[in-house]
Amino acid sequence: MPEFYHHPLCPQSRYIRLVMGELGMEAAQIEERVWERRREFLMLNPAGTTPVLVEENVLPIPGADVIAEYLDETRGLVLGERRLLPEDPLSRVEVRRLCDWFNRKFHEEVSHYLVVEKVHKRFLGPEKGGGAPEGAILRVARANVRYHVKYIGHLLGQRNWLAGDRLTYADLAAAAHLSVCDFLGDVPWNEDETAKQWYARLKSRPSFRPLLADRILGMTPAAHYTNLDF
Amino acid sequence: MPEFYHHPLCPQSRYIRLVMGELGMEAAQIEERVWERRREFLMLNPAGTTPVLVEENVLPIPGADVIAEYLDETRGLVLGERRLLPEDPLSRVEVRRLCDWFNRKFHEEVSHYLVVEKVHKRFLGPEKGGGAPEGAILRVARANVRYHVKYIGHLLGQRNWLAGDRLTYADLAAAAHLSVCDFLGDVPWNEDETAKQWYARLKSRPSFRPLLADRILGMTPAAHYTNLDF
Repeated sequence: MPEFYHHPLCPQSRYIRLVMGELGMEAAQIEERVWERRREFLMLNPAGTTPVLVEENVLPIPGADVIAEYLDETRGLVLGERRLLPEDPLSRVEVRRLCDWFNRKFHEEVSHYLVVEKVHKRFLGPEKGGGAPEGAILRVARANVRYHVKYIGHLLGQRNWLAGDRLTYADLAAAAHLSVCDFLGDVPWNEDETAKQWYARLKSRPSFRPLLADRILGMTPAAHYTNLDF
Repeated sequence: MPEFYHHPLCPQSRYIRLVMGELGMEAAQIEERVWERRREFLMLNPAGTTPVLVEENVLPIPGADVIAEYLDETRGLVLGERRLLPEDPLSRVEVRRLCDWFNRKFHEEVSHYLVVEKVHKRFLGPEKGGGAPEGAILRVARANVRYHVKYIGHLLGQRNWLAGDRLTYADLAAAAHLSVCDFLGDVPWNEDETAKQWYARLKSRPSFRPLLADRILGMTPAAHYTNLDF
């Protein structure tokens, strides 16, 4: 069975967990605390980031975007009409543009701030920069998340799903990042009803269930986190 | 003819210029100063970043990684053995891993710092954060670039090109980022002879010539920048 190195509150890891769920793919889940910079993990991925997929007899596959392309090429075709990366090059552009938007831009402006301040710093000793979250940084993340939620609503004004008429990697990447912010109680769902309904549709998919069951020692998810009708 | 929105010292733009050069593809070049946040450009790419490729009668294609995948799918196949993204899914993993390494990690740790401090801040008014480069930030970038140059040397100890036996996107992405740092005089070539020889091989390719001819108003490239035998 493949091994999957991830952290429950790493948004990129969650994205690939959703992809594997949609593909019906099983993998042994190994929790990795990247802030500990474990030597054996750095051998798997010198960049030191999650997620990493390790298939039997194959070099490690690091990074959400790299894993997503690999899974599409090796397992995606069998999904036919339900393939998560469409066939046509121009539709692929829109899916990849949005994956990049969430895995890079949203990450830099929102989820990375929240995860470092609220998760990493909780587990790091004070000599390594651990401690209470920085209020000013949380405020920046919470201001930024608002325009991303509106952007999702704007896209859905023209389409069924983020990148077009069917579910794609773009929806899973966006939902993964939002789900981490939602766990931490930092998504202003009342600002955009269309975005909220789209998230509710994703949240009720079977691939989402394991994410809703995630628990972190000493951290309680926001009250509505597991509620399908939030 | 397609239009290509870029900046001469944007590393991701240079990566795609190299790709188009290797593909023998022509495009009208339009210089974009992203720090001005021009309205018409934000309509093309709401993320506000270069590069953007605009093909005739097609939606804009933003972002170096998205453009590279698109060009491989629409124009790469004809290269046969010289295709810049190999056929085999596992070889593709290594190419994409390294593209991600340079377009994301190297960018965050080195080239973004240097370009913002030495280029953007030169053209921004003081009320918008312009002015002289911050010495402390330049020192961080110059410390980081050293281990990246060593990593390139390390990879080339086992291979002809960065991702294997032939030239791929990985070499072009890495060389594009290094070429910007080299223009600014910030690559310690004397630290790794293998990396230096690899860069000299790339620098002498016809696709590299337009990059060596780039000039920015009021900025002089490092003395050895255009020298093929540096």
